[in-house]
Amino acid sequence: LRSKLPWVGTTIFTQMSQLAAEHQAINLSQGFPDFPASPLLLDELNRQVAAGNNQYAPMSGVAILRQQIAALTARCYGRLVDADTEITVTSGATEALFVAIQAVVRPGDEVIVFDPAYDSYQPAVELAGGKTIHIQLAAPEYQIDWQAVHRRVTDQTRLIIVNSPHNPTGMVFSATDWRALADLVQQHGLFCISDEVYEHMVFDGAAQLSAHQQTALLDRTFVVSSFGKTFHVTGWKLGYCIAPANLSLEFRKIHQYVIFSSFTPAQFAIAAVLQQRPQLIAELAGFYQQKRDQFARLLQSSAFKLLPCKGTYFQLADYSAISTLNDVEFCHWLTVEHGVAAIPLSVFSRQEQDSKIIRFCFAKQPATLEQAAERLCRLN
Amino acid sequence: LRSKLPWVGTTIFTQMSQLAAEHQAINLSQGFPDFPASPLLLDELNRQVAAGNNQYAPMSGVAILRQQIAALTARCYGRLVDADTEITVTSGATEALFVAIQAVVRPGDEVIVFDPAYDSYQPAVELAGGKTIHIQLAAPEYQIDWQAVHRRVTDQTRLIIVNSPHNPTGMVFSATDWRALADLVQQHGLFCISDEVYEHMVFDGAAQLSAHQQTALLDRTFVVSSFGKTFHVTGWKLGYCIAPANLSLEFRKIHQYVIFSSFTPAQFAIAAVLQQRPQLIAELAGFYQQKRDQFARLLQSSAFKLLPCKGTYFQLADYSAISTLNDVEFCHWLTVEHGVAAIPLSVFSRQEQDSKIIRFCFAKQPATLEQAAERLCRLN
Ligand SMILES: CSCCC(=O)C(=O)O
Ligand SMILES: CSCCC(=O)C(=O)O
Repeated sequence: LRSKLPWVGTTIFTQMSQLAAEHQAINLSQGFPDFPASPLLLDELNRQVAAGNNQYAPMSGVAILRQQIAALTARCYGRLVDADTEITVTSGATEALFVAIQAVVRPGDEVIVFDPAYDSYQPAVELAGGKTIHIQLAAPEYQIDWQAVHRRVTDQTRLIIVNSPHNPTGMVFSATDWRALADLVQQHGLFCISDEVYEHMVFDGAAQLSAHQQTALLDRTFVVSSFGKTFHVTGWKLGYCIAPANLSLEFRKIHQYVIFSSFTPAQFAIAAVLQQRPQLIAELAGFYQQKRDQFARLLQSSAFKLLPCKGTYFQLADYSAISTLNDVEFCHWLTVEHGVAAIPLSVFSRQEQDSKIIRFCFAKQPATLEQAAERLCRLN
Repeated sequence: LRSKLPWVGTTIFTQMSQLAAEHQAINLSQGFPDFPASPLLLDELNRQVAAGNNQYAPMSGVAILRQQIAALTARCYGRLVDADTEITVTSGATEALFVAIQAVVRPGDEVIVFDPAYDSYQPAVELAGGKTIHIQLAAPEYQIDWQAVHRRVTDQTRLIIVNSPHNPTGMVFSATDWRALADLVQQHGLFCISDEVYEHMVFDGAAQLSAHQQTALLDRTFVVSSFGKTFHVTGWKLGYCIAPANLSLEFRKIHQYVIFSSFTPAQFAIAAVLQQRPQLIAELAGFYQQKRDQFARLLQSSAFKLLPCKGTYFQLADYSAISTLNDVEFCHWLTVEHGVAAIPLSVFSRQEQDSKIIRFCFAKQPATLEQAAERLCRLN
């Protein structure tokens, strides 16, 4: 069988989590919490399962969940979306990204992505016959030069994929970035996928901004988010896509043949929690800011140099004072020899340049972060 | 946005289930049980959720589930598969079918499908740039003329998709069919997807046969199955794909970017039930044969003429003695005016010929079947 994705291996997240497990390292690589989700959510799931809500959900998601998503979108961003025609519940943000890309990209189309980039964008584009155009962002701020982006647009450019708050860098779009994006999309008639899975994790009192607030973007944009991140249940694989009815129609045509529908009881459970405890979401930024600050404090005496982190649950760290190994080798060594797993930054970029920077996930219990930091502080 | 699937609407299953709900009709359309799953399974899920198994599963599925699938495959078919490299857990059989098709089909490829066919095959092939070649099977036996299939193979033919036990007709491959398929695949160097989601529902003492038993097929075949069907939890969206390591490698490359992984707690729960109660699966054929027989008995005095049903939980019925409406109109009328929803057979075929046949799902409690039959017996 000739490979459709000859350059693709097992994702770095799988590789590092496996290596961490083999060596009983503290796993700060793949992004997932090591603490429990809200008992309310877990109880609610049990109730739904016991009540017999175990058959196919509607293809677009259960109605009360879509209504709660609409309410959340109105609350956070003042955008009114129609729960029936503009919201589709997906099996995680990954499925939403994949489907939105399949809906838009045709053979020969170009898709602008910003490196470092989440690893699923490029293969999804290539499976649709498209080609990713990579714009490399630079440490430590990873800002986008929007004039440079304009210059990379060609007649073939069809889609731009943005991600704010940004995995893996923790960069967060400013109001100026959002406006520049809206201008670009409008001026060139592009489509846009806005990957906002870390939307509720923006720190230091900065406003939580979104594509939802850019009127000029709305009729050409798929906004993707994730309950797995927001509710500390990454293994529940529940996300959603918000797009205007005509785009959602095409999205759903594909979604219904990719997975048809997502795990039913979790949809009801999340709807119940969104309704009963909306404050859980409002508290998320403070919750993760504390973790970011704890981790930074603990590493103050280390030889790692931390980069700015304005959002997400990831912290970049420069290890050039510690080792001359490249970042892939360093992560391997760190896991095997020092019992802490992280992700090398270079794997998020097509150029795979080694910049001696790695990514830690700080979605962990205080004790986990302490133990990891203790090990990391031993390196000099 | 120009549609990638201009001819596709909302699936018939969604349409009919919606119509049934609107009119409070008994829903014998979309295939799902109306009775609870094993309490052991539900309790086990609750235990897993409470124990905190709520983060990402490994991309290929949790190891103990893959081991149980290997054990099941050995028990049922005598095939030994490697749990590490040949089994991938998916978000339902739908995802497995979609991913296998993406892995194999390239622009310009032809894919042989048999009509009536499950509705996801064709869109999945078209999204990969391929073209489905439809071979129409004829009532009442829906047998395949394998010589005719040979004649439809061209230089472009790359894949054949088979489905036994067959949805919607209840046809089941004989040993001769399986051998003929193996010959065809080998002779023309095709790939094969064997959709066996109803594998454990074969009636009247017939042997449960599978692609797994055809040595000549194994190195070119993706076998797809579904726990949703086997364990009465269609809303759990858990299935799997078994294929040799080189095919599974390509399958996983795509799977990891389509959904990455499936709902974690359900994977552990199903693994536990497979281990503790293997007889649940062995009992399934008898369980559904009883339902088939009950439904047939109840409809004996009706004007419906039932077609042979050798497997699956679907029963085809000819209504030509009742109405001259075409099957789509008839299903609408039956739902709205008589409170029973079914699926028109024509929608499963590209030609969409009306043969005055509809499909009932008999995966229902005895009381549901009785109530439905009472309504159906009133029609003359
Ligand atoms: C789907 S596994 C990757 C999880 C994640 O989002 C990350 O670690 O970046
Ligand atoms: C995924 S909804 C369709 C369920 C089913 O397999 C059927 O009714 O044929």
